[in-house]
Parts: sequence; C-alpha cells; structure tokens
Amino acid sequence: MMPSKYLRATGDLGVLIERATGQVKIVNHSNNTALSEIDGLGDLSHASIVFSRDERYAYVFGRDGGLTKVDLLTDKIAKRVIQSGNSIGGAISQDGKLVAVSNYTPGGVKIFNSETLELVAEIPASVLTAKPKNKDGSPVRSKVVGLVDAPGHKFVFSLFDSHEIWVADMSGPELKLTKHEDIGLFPYDALMSPDGRYYIAGLFGEDGMAMLDLWHPEKGVSRILKDYGKGDKKLPVYKMPHLEGWAMTQDFAFVPAVGQHKVLVVDLKTWQQVAEIDVHGQPIFVMAQPDNRQIWVNFAYPLNDTIEVYNTETFEQVKSLKPGPAVLHMEFTPRGENVWMSVRDNNEVQIYDTQTQELLSTMKAKSPSGIFFTSRAHQIGL
Amino acid sequence: MMPSKYLRATGDLGVLIERATGQVKIVNHSNNTALSEIDGLGDLSHASIVFSRDERYAYVFGRDGGLTKVDLLTDKIAKRVIQSGNSIGGAISQDGKLVAVSNYTPGGVKIFNSETLELVAEIPASVLTAKPKNKDGSPVRSKVVGLVDAPGHKFVFSLFDSHEIWVADMSGPELKLTKHEDIGLFPYDALMSPDGRYYIAGLFGEDGMAMLDLWHPEKGVSRILKDYGKGDKKLPVYKMPHLEGWAMTQDFAFVPAVGQHKVLVVDLKTWQQVAEIDVHGQPIFVMAQPDNRQIWVNFAYPLNDTIEVYNTETFEQVKSLKPGPAVLHMEFTPRGENVWMSVRDNNEVQIYDTQTQELLSTMKAKSPSGIFFTSRAHQIGL
Repeated sequence: MMPSKYLRATGDLGVLIERATGQVKIVNHSNNTALSEIDGLGDLSHASIVFSRDERYAYVFGRDGGLTKVDLLTDKIAKRVIQSGNSIGGAISQDGKLVAVSNYTPGGVKIFNSETLELVAEIPASVLTAKPKNKDGSPVRSKVVGLVDAPGHKFVFSLFDSHEIWVADMSGPELKLTKHEDIGLFPYDALMSPDGRYYIAGLFGEDGMAMLDLWHPEKGVSRILKDYGKGDKKLPVYKMPHLEGWAMTQDFAFVPAVGQHKVLVVDLKTWQQVAEIDVHGQPIFVMAQPDNRQIWVNFAYPLNDTIEVYNTETFEQVKSLKPGPAVLHMEFTPRGENVWMSVRDNNEVQIYDTQTQELLSTMKAKSPSGIFFTSRAHQIGL
Repeated sequence: MMPSKYLRATGDLGVLIERATGQVKIVNHSNNTALSEIDGLGDLSHASIVFSRDERYAYVFGRDGGLTKVDLLTDKIAKRVIQSGNSIGGAISQDGKLVAVSNYTPGGVKIFNSETLELVAEIPASVLTAKPKNKDGSPVRSKVVGLVDAPGHKFVFSLFDSHEIWVADMSGPELKLTKHEDIGLFPYDALMSPDGRYYIAGLFGEDGMAMLDLWHPEKGVSRILKDYGKGDKKLPVYKMPHLEGWAMTQDFAFVPAVGQHKVLVVDLKTWQQVAEIDVHGQPIFVMAQPDNRQIWVNFAYPLNDTIEVYNTETFEQVKSLKPGPAVLHMEFTPRGENVWMSVRDNNEVQIYDTQTQELLSTMKAKSPSGIFFTSRAHQIGL
C-alpha cells in the first residue's frame, strides 16, 4: 500500500523563478499553494523552463549556461550541468527524449538526453569570419536565439549575428540540418504558432519579420509585416517585446509594437496588419487566454505596474489593473479560469480570475519573474 | 525520503476501456506500457472519460449510470456511484471542481462535487407531455446528449426529444440556466470548437446542424451546413458519426458525412462546405493530429478494419492502413508524435508513428474501445 502522504499528481504543478536568489518554487495551481523551494540553480536572470512529457521534471535554462533538471515529485535537483558560458533558452523534443539549449558563448545549440543530461549532439553556429578570434584561438560564432521544438522531432532556431534560421531534424539516425540564409538582419527572438506550422523571427536590424512555413520549407523564409519594428520614429525602446508573448486566436495575431504604446492586430490569413490598439505603455507580453476571449498585456519600465485586458473581438478595453511594481510575467491555468502574474518588486505572485479580473489570492516569492505550468509539456513550440 | 518505487507522474498516463469485461487499463504513453487493470466498473459500452485538473483521477461515465472515479496513482477505484438508470457521457468544469453527467433515464443532467462525488445540482430535462407517464407516476423527460464544458464555468448540452440546447452557468452562487428552444429536430450529439466558442449539435431528425456561438448567446442558435445529413439519398446509415471526432484545423473543419463514403471540408469562416474527400467507407471519427498536418479516419462496420490518413492541405491520401477488425477509437499523444488505436476484435491496442505511419508497438487488451489520455484535463470542451 502506497503511503498517501507520498502521493502527488503532476498535472496542476508549476515552477516560479526567484531570480535574485537563484531559487525556484514548486507551486500547485489547483489550490494556489507553494509546495517547496529549491536552491542552487545559479544565475536565473531571463531563465526559462520546459517540462518532461510526464510532467515530472522541469528543465531550467539559466543565463550562466546552467541546465538544471528539477524533480517535481521529490522537490530536489535531479541533475545539473553547466553546458556553456552563456545561454538564452531551450526546448524539448516532440517525444520528450531530447532537450536542446541555445547558447551565446560559444554560439550554437547543444542537445542532451532528457533522462541523463548527457550530450547527444552539438550544432556549432556559423563562424563570424570578420571578427577577431577568441583568446583560446577558437573562432567567434553567431549567438543563437529563438529556439523552439517543432513537429516531426525538429528544433528550429535563429542565428543572431549571421542572419540565419536553421532547422535541425532529429527524427532519423543522423541529425539533418537545413540552413536558411539571409533571412533578415539580426533575428533577436522568435515564436511558433500553436500548431507548430509557422516560425516567426523578430528582426533587430531592420523592420519586418522573417517567417518560415514548416509545412513548406522548400519555399524558404518570407518577409511579413514589413512596417513592424522601430521604423523611422526612433522612439526610445525600453525593452524589446517578447515574441513568445504573441497571442494567436482563430483569426488574429495580437503583436506588441516595438517601442510604441500599441498592440498590433494581424490577420492570420494574409499576415497583414488590420488594426491597432492603443495601450498604456510599450507592451512586452501580449497573451491570449486559452479560450482566446481576451488578451492580457504587460508593459515595459517605467509603466510596468499595470496590466490591461482587451476583448479579442471588439478590441475594447475590458479592465485596467495595477498589480504593483514590475509585473514581469503571466501564466494562464491550462483551461484559463485563472491567470498568475509575478509582481517582482512586491515580492509576490498574484492570482486573478480571468472572467471577473478580480484578485483571488497572493503568494509570497522572492523577486519572482517567470511562471511556468506543467501543462506546457503537452504544447507544441514552446 | 520518499521511496522511489512509489513515485509516478501523471502527465503521460491514459485509460483504456475494456468494454466486454467492465474493466479499464491504466497505461503510460511515454514507454507504451500497461501499468494496471481495474475491475468493477459496470457496463462500459459507449463509456467515456474526463480527468481531474491534476491528472490524478479519471471519471468514467458508464452506460448503466455508473460514475466511477479511478485513482491513477494507486490503481484503485477511489469512489463509485450509480447516479442514474442510463447515462451517455459527462464533462468536468473549467476549474475542475464539478463533474456533470448527461442522462437518458431519467432525462437530465446531474452535477457532482469532483472530490466527493456528492450531488451538487440536478437539472431535470423538459417534460414530454405527449408521452404517457413512467410506471412510478413521474413524467417522461427528454434524453440529454452532447454534454460539454465551456469557458466561464459553464456546461452546455442538448435535449434530444425536446429539440433544445441548454447552457448551465455554474460561476455564481446559484446555477443559472439558459434555454434555447426549437434548435432543430432531435439533436443526437454535439461538439465544441477547441477554443470553447462554438457548440455544434448534429440533428437526427433533419438535415443541417445547430450552432450556438457562446461569445454571442444573445444571437441564439443558428443553422449551418443545411445539406449535412442523410439527405434524399436514403443510404443505410450503419452508425451515426461521432461529432466529437470532428477535426478542426486553423482553416477547416473536417466532418464525417452521414451514411456516405465522404469526409466533408468546411470553411470555418463561412461554415460552408468547400470540398469533399472520397474515403473508404462511412467515416465515424475524423481526427486531426495535434499539429493539424493530417487527419486520421476510421469507418463503420463492415469496413471498420481500415484507417485512412489524409493531408489537411491538399486533401490527398497519405496512407491506408489495415490494423485489423473493428478499429473503434484513436487517441493522439499530446504533441502528436504517436497515435494509439483500439482494434477491438484483435484484442489489442496498436501504436503508430504519425510521421511515418509505421506500427511501433502493440498492447494486449480485452475488447478495447475508448482510449483517453490525461492531457485531456487541460483541454476545453471535451
């Protein structure tokens, strides 16, 4: 007989990043409680997380190149490796067997066995021949950003300095790499549509975005939203928006405008902008509820104490909230009844009812940033 | 220290219905194994399952009115009630706190606390005044079908005999019921779009379907696909298709035609039929992979030994498979790399790679029918 105190299901768990202290909290989003706190994860600025397909393990990608596998059943670090000098995120393969990490230094992607964290494959990024070599004599390689999983056991990522999008196909016995060159200047982040079809990279060096249709890779990378970007207005951009925060409903993508107090509405059939919504500040994350009924928007400093909620059909504002200083990230419960948000400088996480937009509960946390629920294990392209 | 033999995550579990013996099997879809078999679930013909939001419990709706809560961590029945004389399915609320069951006898919906299975609310269906009373003197009420959950803590269902669609709003302190009358003759099954917006009921008594846009309930129920149904051709219909098996991609719904060897392609913008695909037999389930790249179709007796796979963009056939006699149900792994199918009269479940359509593995099971994975806990409208 299994002692019941040991029993824990994993479908309603999550992990909060506590950036300042290199810790994470394991949380339960059925009863809005913290289950445990785990130390020793290193530099967690800009950290992100993916989950094993059984929703037992969280893979935490730290800025210092640390890849930490946290066991949500035992509240312990199961494994930890320092896999590079400077990393920016990661992804888990469709079958859950491989974890990939995108690195700045040295530039490239490393792929690990998700069970053991043993290195399975390494994909060095393009060499930047114009740059002087590293001190150890090795060539400087492009930074890698915007790494996501794709159907067919693929990983897709962008090369910031060499202006490329690469697709690594892991379905066969040998890694098969496809390179798309000259995709636009300095892709700095990317996102995948929820069905894993469209990979879209934001460009830091020019206006517009680069799109790869993974159903038709033979057509190459095309350019969309040619006016998207900083444009001629030269507004100060406090923070480039997170592309992962794009909201896609059945009809539209809701896109944070760069440096402007606007959310752009894009028709998914034509990839043309069809409307814009005036918002409180420079939007960072624009996130659709799982039922696509509303979008929730947070903003860049100094207007980052505010959240706005908009109707996805009328584009009208539903509510404006002031959760407190530095609202950094939001995460919806899987079927969308609640949304969690980290209010960093209040040292708390706030939990709202999405239907009434009322505060339901708060949870103490040390400088919380990212919030990640295990239901992500079942989603494509994160 | 928690003994590791007791540890089990729940994100990659599932439950198989073994209809003939009133049993279910708990399975793991990471390593394609059966973990346990559980007896005593009563009449499981046409049984269906929903999962608790933590993915620990399966709620099994049996034909005999049995509602059984199975614990996937202890491999035991946690609770079981006989809640009616004849039931047809159920749903779990957005927040996971309520389980609703739709009943034929007596006609109506019962709503239970998902924790305790205590009755929370009862919604008797419309009285059929033209019918003679039951032996106990009670009035005969309409059968209830097509029960699903909807965003905003709602349940939506159809009344077969009284031609209605009702919405039960459970978000307030009191149950709020909205009734849509004269929606079309004899709604026999229904489905919800993946975002929980459109509730669509099939009509047994006439051609066409009834659609309720839950974003605009004030507009009432409209009629779509007016030619959908048996039409004038009067072909023998071996089995009415399952509407839950509708596949919806970004652009199209793929709909099993009633009694014809066709899958209909419907534009989701206009709800007009735009194409039809000739298939092997009368389609029962038409299911889209999670990445929407292909649909998988099974067929009514006597052609139910076959599965066909079609491309959702070109509508061309990708593969025809002969898994064996009586392929009853399919279930995709959450990110769609594999599909499981029950081959009832071979007493086995077969597991295929969706990309190559190759058989990966088989599992023995006694007259398997429905296959349900815990990832359904995170989805709307099931």
